[in-house]
Amino acid sequence: MLEKKHIAHLTNLLTPQNIYSDKAHLLAYSYDATREHFEPDAVVFPRDENDVSEILKYCNEHKIIIVPRGAGSGFTGGALPSSGGIVLAFEKHMNKLLEIDMQNMVAVVQPGLINMDLQRAVEAVGLFYPPDPASQEYSTIGGNVSENAGGMRAAKYGITKDYVMAMRAVLPNGDVIKAGKKTIKDVAGYNISGILIASEGTLAVTTEVTLKLIPKPKLTKTAMGIFESVSQAMEAVYKTMASGVTPVAMEFLDNLTIRAVEQTFNKGLPVDAGAILVTDVDGNLEDDLNFQMAQIEKVFRENGCSTFQIAKDKDEAADLWFARRNASPALSIYGSKKLNEDVTVPRAALPELLEKFNAIADKYNINIPCFGHTGDGNVHTNVMVDGSDPEQVKIAYQAIEEVFQATVDLGGTLSGEHGIGLAKAPYMHMAFSDEEMLLFKSIKKAFDPNNILNPAKMGL
Amino acid sequence: MLEKKHIAHLTNLLTPQNIYSDKAHLLAYSYDATREHFEPDAVVFPRDENDVSEILKYCNEHKIIIVPRGAGSGFTGGALPSSGGIVLAFEKHMNKLLEIDMQNMVAVVQPGLINMDLQRAVEAVGLFYPPDPASQEYSTIGGNVSENAGGMRAAKYGITKDYVMAMRAVLPNGDVIKAGKKTIKDVAGYNISGILIASEGTLAVTTEVTLKLIPKPKLTKTAMGIFESVSQAMEAVYKTMASGVTPVAMEFLDNLTIRAVEQTFNKGLPVDAGAILVTDVDGNLEDDLNFQMAQIEKVFRENGCSTFQIAKDKDEAADLWFARRNASPALSIYGSKKLNEDVTVPRAALPELLEKFNAIADKYNINIPCFGHTGDGNVHTNVMVDGSDPEQVKIAYQAIEEVFQATVDLGGTLSGEHGIGLAKAPYMHMAFSDEEMLLFKSIKKAFDPNNILNPAKMGL
Repeated sequence: MLEKKHIAHLTNLLTPQNIYSDKAHLLAYSYDATREHFEPDAVVFPRDENDVSEILKYCNEHKIIIVPRGAGSGFTGGALPSSGGIVLAFEKHMNKLLEIDMQNMVAVVQPGLINMDLQRAVEAVGLFYPPDPASQEYSTIGGNVSENAGGMRAAKYGITKDYVMAMRAVLPNGDVIKAGKKTIKDVAGYNISGILIASEGTLAVTTEVTLKLIPKPKLTKTAMGIFESVSQAMEAVYKTMASGVTPVAMEFLDNLTIRAVEQTFNKGLPVDAGAILVTDVDGNLEDDLNFQMAQIEKVFRENGCSTFQIAKDKDEAADLWFARRNASPALSIYGSKKLNEDVTVPRAALPELLEKFNAIADKYNINIPCFGHTGDGNVHTNVMVDGSDPEQVKIAYQAIEEVFQATVDLGGTLSGEHGIGLAKAPYMHMAFSDEEMLLFKSIKKAFDPNNILNPAKMGL
Repeated sequence: MLEKKHIAHLTNLLTPQNIYSDKAHLLAYSYDATREHFEPDAVVFPRDENDVSEILKYCNEHKIIIVPRGAGSGFTGGALPSSGGIVLAFEKHMNKLLEIDMQNMVAVVQPGLINMDLQRAVEAVGLFYPPDPASQEYSTIGGNVSENAGGMRAAKYGITKDYVMAMRAVLPNGDVIKAGKKTIKDVAGYNISGILIASEGTLAVTTEVTLKLIPKPKLTKTAMGIFESVSQAMEAVYKTMASGVTPVAMEFLDNLTIRAVEQTFNKGLPVDAGAILVTDVDGNLEDDLNFQMAQIEKVFRENGCSTFQIAKDKDEAADLWFARRNASPALSIYGSKKLNEDVTVPRAALPELLEKFNAIADKYNINIPCFGHTGDGNVHTNVMVDGSDPEQVKIAYQAIEEVFQATVDLGGTLSGEHGIGLAKAPYMHMAFSDEEMLLFKSIKKAFDPNNILNPAKMGL
């Protein structure tokens, strides 16, 4: 519980309309997409960077916990006040697109700006911000940077970190720092934004982000390939990427996911197929797109693709994407409890990874439907069980541990884009040595000696 | 001076042929490309990561300074043992290309591998490692990572940091850590390689680097544009980049540089031109290259380009590149002392930056020829004076300070690709606040509490 004098101080600093400490509002800020919940002691809405600095300085002096929060759409509890404290929310004031600099092709934004609002604004002037997490309609750039969000277009265009050129941030002691410039090259001083990205709000509070934009490609083409077996599809994925073309997206659905979408939406999908791959290519010339598509079809056909369909127009493209875009909710046919992971392996390890997942599903007699961003080795692995049966839930967590072990054994990572937060903190020891965890702790301490910023996340 | 017992311990650890402590060898390792020199107390050649760990552990216990060294080709003294100690050199043993993983399109290398050896090996199998610092024929990947080296192709393909997927490194206490994976996405734990890149060997010693490779584009085309004024050329640069095409390289020479190359090599260059831009485009289809070239020509012509020449073949392309590639040595006609900087600004600030440099040259009545990587805002700024005249040398350093101030005022950085090292350490205060320097020092301390790794670099 936060002492009344602290509430009074912050109320005085921010004005009463920018602080909540009543039960109803605290409840509203106690959730994220994990369905876990922890009530904060207060929620504050800084009006500007100076407010953030004053809040942090005060909280640091009084050792009050601060948990930065974007849209609260995270899958790992990164924005949950699991140890109490104050939630720092950017949605009310610090949510602006400050500048689209056409000449230098950069955007300057506040942390609370919604990803899709940025995408739409820059596309309106012929530019392109590629990172497109599934949460793009509501997640914020601040949250995207804190988790280093990925998305479907990562196979060609990379992830959030590849677009962050500069940041402004406030350290736990209230110091304001700038890191990076509006320049492609900058090697002066330590790469502070390099370590802030993906640090899950544990090191500093982001107050401004400068993002690289690229020219918007004029044309896009979509195709879908149907494969007899999931291994053949996975072979096709990495062989396509290694063949000289780089599709924007190379997404897959396994048989269980295809069946779930078909049962839910009745779209005439091939329910006996081992896997479907959906792919986009882009560019400025029709010939270039045709060249890329021909190459992809060739590799797909060489690897057991029986049907290869190129969309003739936008409507057909939307049809081909329908199954992938609706995969996640459809999986509820397999159980009320979903443990949704985002493990990622080197692409060539995908066939073996999916075999191992199959063996884990068989061992526990559960369904583990998979879909996702195979173009970058990122598989959304869904362990589905009956949430009302404690025995099943226990089995699900056992299976997840084996999913992580299989991933790490194949040179992969616990998380490709969701982060560690609370949900995966117990598994950090599987991926990191004691020496590595010690280094993380030293870095945390260098930034945040009083451990006031989002404590207990990432296993720290 | 290193005590004899330490030399004896290291000799025993590494065998006598892997340690130098005689005067002649120490002298050979006392230089880099700055022409400054500082003799080390010993030079050691680790055979493997375990040697690196043992050396660091021992030196940390005895508070002996360690200075990691690649090829010693740096322009800022980053590899010089300015406070004495032991130089750790990778050229003898830890210089291997360990793996080209075709399926995942990555290379795994040791720090002492020469950049060009990597480029040649991967191009032989149809892959591409774009970072191409001017030192590519001799500089090492370890050095490239430590300085976050750039190059001509950065405009389209980015710099070293954009290709580092994972690293192995040894901390000053001897702990071996792994950071990153052979995956495009990895958001588990702090982004340690993000902070190690460009840290100039002050935080940890790199023992292995995993690099992203991309498909090698099949075709390249070169063109040259001649401009009446340098401002028009600079306008053309950022307007081209913002027009929807992204050339591989967009390099410039100003009038002084053109004259120097012509006087030295007599190639029939337009000595009255304000500037020359040389540009490359690449891709897999002739039509795509023609599309890009047409766009570039259009923007060039709209911005005062009087002559636009597209190379018909490789020989003509080499001719068009000749002046740019030979610019640096030709500048010696302007004086025996060259202060060679690599300031970088947001591209749209280039016209104003060059005007400011012109004013500085006028003020001090000296020549400041400029050339370089305008496609990414990186200008090689050469303050040329008579090195035998102490008054001129003093003036040169005054001019350099104004060059840095002009750059910082325009939102630029002290260094686009050479790093800070010793040479630019005195100017760090112009670019960073006390709070930012304090943060750098905290990070340094978190990694290296005894300050044994490359001390006094970067102003730390």
